[in-house]
Amino acid sequence: LDYQHVQVPFEITLWIMLASLAKIGFHLYNKLPSVVPESCLLIFVGLIMGGIIYGLNDRSPPVMDSDIFFLYLLPPIVLDAGYFMPSRPFFENIGTILLYAVVGTIWNVFGIGFSLYGICQVKAFRLQDVSLLHNLLFGSLIAAVDPVAVLAVFEEIHVNEKLHILVFGESLLNDAVTVVLYKLFRSFCEMPTIKSVDIFAGVGKFFVVGLGGVLVGLSFGFTAAFTTRFTKDIRVIEPLFVFLYSYLSYLTAEMFHLSGIVAIISCAMGMKRYVEANISLKSHTTVKYFMKMWSSVSDTLIFIFLGVSTIGENHEWNWPYICFTVIFCLIWRALGVLVLTFFVNRFHVNTITSKDQFIIAYGGLRGAICFSLVFLLPDFHRKKLFIAATTVVILFTVFIQGMTIRPLVDLLAVKRKRESAPTVGEQIHIRFLDHLLAGIEDISGHWGQYYWKDKLEYFNSKYLQKILLREYDQPKSSIVLLYEKLERKHAMELAQAGQLGHSPAQPPFLCSAFLCSSSDRTVITDQKLEDTLNPAVLDNIQEILARNLYRIRRTGPAYNRHTLPGDSEPAERAKEILILRHKSL
Amino acid sequence: LDYQHVQVPFEITLWIMLASLAKIGFHLYNKLPSVVPESCLLIFVGLIMGGIIYGLNDRSPPVMDSDIFFLYLLPPIVLDAGYFMPSRPFFENIGTILLYAVVGTIWNVFGIGFSLYGICQVKAFRLQDVSLLHNLLFGSLIAAVDPVAVLAVFEEIHVNEKLHILVFGESLLNDAVTVVLYKLFRSFCEMPTIKSVDIFAGVGKFFVVGLGGVLVGLSFGFTAAFTTRFTKDIRVIEPLFVFLYSYLSYLTAEMFHLSGIVAIISCAMGMKRYVEANISLKSHTTVKYFMKMWSSVSDTLIFIFLGVSTIGENHEWNWPYICFTVIFCLIWRALGVLVLTFFVNRFHVNTITSKDQFIIAYGGLRGAICFSLVFLLPDFHRKKLFIAATTVVILFTVFIQGMTIRPLVDLLAVKRKRESAPTVGEQIHIRFLDHLLAGIEDISGHWGQYYWKDKLEYFNSKYLQKILLREYDQPKSSIVLLYEKLERKHAMELAQAGQLGHSPAQPPFLCSAFLCSSSDRTVITDQKLEDTLNPAVLDNIQEILARNLYRIRRTGPAYNRHTLPGDSEPAERAKEILILRHKSL
Repeated sequence: LDYQHVQVPFEITLWIMLASLAKIGFHLYNKLPSVVPESCLLIFVGLIMGGIIYGLNDRSPPVMDSDIFFLYLLPPIVLDAGYFMPSRPFFENIGTILLYAVVGTIWNVFGIGFSLYGICQVKAFRLQDVSLLHNLLFGSLIAAVDPVAVLAVFEEIHVNEKLHILVFGESLLNDAVTVVLYKLFRSFCEMPTIKSVDIFAGVGKFFVVGLGGVLVGLSFGFTAAFTTRFTKDIRVIEPLFVFLYSYLSYLTAEMFHLSGIVAIISCAMGMKRYVEANISLKSHTTVKYFMKMWSSVSDTLIFIFLGVSTIGENHEWNWPYICFTVIFCLIWRALGVLVLTFFVNRFHVNTITSKDQFIIAYGGLRGAICFSLVFLLPDFHRKKLFIAATTVVILFTVFIQGMTIRPLVDLLAVKRKRESAPTVGEQIHIRFLDHLLAGIEDISGHWGQYYWKDKLEYFNSKYLQKILLREYDQPKSSIVLLYEKLERKHAMELAQAGQLGHSPAQPPFLCSAFLCSSSDRTVITDQKLEDTLNPAVLDNIQEILARNLYRIRRTGPAYNRHTLPGDSEPAERAKEILILRHKSL
Repeated sequence: LDYQHVQVPFEITLWIMLASLAKIGFHLYNKLPSVVPESCLLIFVGLIMGGIIYGLNDRSPPVMDSDIFFLYLLPPIVLDAGYFMPSRPFFENIGTILLYAVVGTIWNVFGIGFSLYGICQVKAFRLQDVSLLHNLLFGSLIAAVDPVAVLAVFEEIHVNEKLHILVFGESLLNDAVTVVLYKLFRSFCEMPTIKSVDIFAGVGKFFVVGLGGVLVGLSFGFTAAFTTRFTKDIRVIEPLFVFLYSYLSYLTAEMFHLSGIVAIISCAMGMKRYVEANISLKSHTTVKYFMKMWSSVSDTLIFIFLGVSTIGENHEWNWPYICFTVIFCLIWRALGVLVLTFFVNRFHVNTITSKDQFIIAYGGLRGAICFSLVFLLPDFHRKKLFIAATTVVILFTVFIQGMTIRPLVDLLAVKRKRESAPTVGEQIHIRFLDHLLAGIEDISGHWGQYYWKDKLEYFNSKYLQKILLREYDQPKSSIVLLYEKLERKHAMELAQAGQLGHSPAQPPFLCSAFLCSSSDRTVITDQKLEDTLNPAVLDNIQEILARNLYRIRRTGPAYNRHTLPGDSEPAERAKEILILRHKSL
């Protein structure tokens, strides 16, 4: 027996196997997952495993390694979250999300930190040795809502899309704030004196960390899209690039102390539409399926490890500190949501209802990120107290809040997610309204989200698509292609039936066919059709087509305050018609 | 900048990225891969990379770690090979393959070992310090044909299926022999005296290693199939089990010093048909696609690392030893193939032609397995000579033989693989002939492959499928289901049109419908149809159906020398009809 040799991969495989089997086990009893969230069950399995290890070895089971968590377990989940992020509600609510993520998290950090410092001043609690900075450091790690925990719970309760994206978006984007504040306070703890310069540097650093993450992510995302342009002959490795570039963006961001979560999300959102267009359908199925699978396994492992790590002798118990931590976490989050929503609602027509506010506040679950951060703390005499408090907060939020949020959603009759996909009619109307609103915003000079969306779309179709897509042309949907085919057939039949006027003695044309390409209509006439037209009619048709075609093709970004319709060069128009004619030849 | 922190995953990701980009690069120029095999190009890239590292660092670049190779790079390739192994030609030629793999490899090991020992006796070559045992040890690692190299070359030249499976099957199954001989000689080298008991133990060990591998593999394979029975509610982690169980089988076999390659191949071949039936179509696409992708990346990495590891100061050059190694490898393989094929052809109608023999001998490529084994050798003063000789043999076989085999195949007009899939007619005939031959073998008392295949199929459908498949019934193809639906509709229409005889005043039946289930035909009559039949007609139909149905359903394994047709109990038959009727109710 040579166990040493295969130990590492063997144990990793066994852990993954345990996680997967546990997942299957829960789903064998259909009633169980509908009452208790899976995350709770998994933590429970972890607790049992931890208990067994503790019982057998008589020492604390190994805690989840922070490196393993941040380098291997977290990225798949965040990648999955970013890749499947519903971009429309996300960008529609980006302002609100950022407000919650940035201002809300800072509010929570300082709120919790200062009030816990207040508790520490009470002599009866014997906590006077915990300094303000340590409390703030603790606040910075306990304040952040955890994307893994939020995702695990909110995916099961099916609240409406807006509510979901508000909580989930906040949990993702607060990473930049958490990283900055955590590192700031940690370095402050080790500094002898703190100058005001350091504080300003911290504020500046926040922008660097957040925007740097976005930049790193987008550049890797576009590189990924560009790479998939060249994989036509070797389809089998296409899915790999999606994973490799996303992971590289995460690692690169972490390497430069930027926000890895923000980077990987930007990367995934940036690459998605181009990669989807470039890679084959099977590759795309594999990408989607594997991403879901991987994130599901990571998620499972995280909760199991969370359970395992809870068991042991890492804890120092202090009733007042731990109880007040839980209470302050709840109070400050509720207050923060109330105050911020008050401001948000003043600027929006579509307000956040008080029920939604309650769910946002109540859905602020803490999870494995806090847990890993607290173990990464430098050693000091109260570290075990912080570990105990963090563990309790996590278990409280995941178990109590996670288990009661579903009945509460039912009780309050919170607006649910619509089950059916929007109809074609709805989709067309939404798109039409987008164009309309972009035009209105442009006319009124209000540079709102529709204006920017329109600009971005224009930039995308004019430059990005040409560089990043294998086929420059707008990809046509199958229904459009079918319609074109039918139209063409119809035209040929008409021609053959002689309904277009027949003149047998007629010279052959050089221009043998037309291509009338409006956005969704093409009629290519055949050799036979062309024979039935005389030159005069042909010229007339050509003239009409030439004038209208060009107009129609420019419907997209045509109107602008600074130009008049029909303002474009006639030469350019003629050139375009020539190109169209050449194509049809 | 915090590089230390992310170093390991970052560098792994970069290596994989390099491999993938190199692969894309070759395929951008379509002509290149059609002349030079990809493996050569990749080794070349590796050589350049190695040169750069050597130039920059001024020391030998890191060699491919044997652990990384055996634990992480080899399994995906072998899993892919096993999962996509064409089982029919494999089992049809299993005898020949085993002969080549076992006897052929032993022949090569001893041939090369003894003749090199002969060379070492020539005083002019100054090799007298290399003992016989060391030469045999070297022979045991250099004799084995490498599956990775063979697969890389043979996938591109498209020779006929039988030739392909002979070379490829041999390269996979010789692992058991290589493992045993290599470990045997290595322990002999360290022993002071060798008793004849040790030699017999070695021979016995070969069976343990090979059959043990098969056993470990099959048990993990069946466990995997059994596990996927319960994944109906959690489709997303289905693909994981295929990978986890295969990998566990490999690691477990390695742990017990069995043949990991044999284990993972048995596991993949054992689980395949059950897993395919249990998991969803999307999961299966993901499994197949990811397997191909993973093996492709592993393969690429292996060849690149092979190139990188070649550069450096690990080599001791000795012209005669190295040249004679190459020559003996060629000669002994050619001789072995000739002699073994002579015996094989005496027992087979479908003989191996001399052209095929030449390609089998010429296709004996060596690769990364030898390379990893030679680095695993215990340190002794001539290790560097062995490394040099192994490197030269690998480069010679991969470059010279790999590049010339395609022109040779063209020149000799070796029978190619048929491009088109067999037609339905052909498939039906093949299956029919299988049944026929199984019957003939059974009658004549010759227990050949068809007999055993039939027995296995019977055992499978009677026991294994019931345990391992989610739905016990034979899975029906979509065309059968459609046919059933149409038949049912037709029957209802007939009934509604009153063509089956109408009698309005009729008592309701308990037995409301029939189920006529031959292997591909089901007619379920509706409430309406049943109303149109009178009891006498009904009983008559029931009687006819009852008699014929049972007969039809037993077409499969009905005939047997020891039983007569119609030998089964009438009670059993009645019971079966009762079950059918209950089902239809």
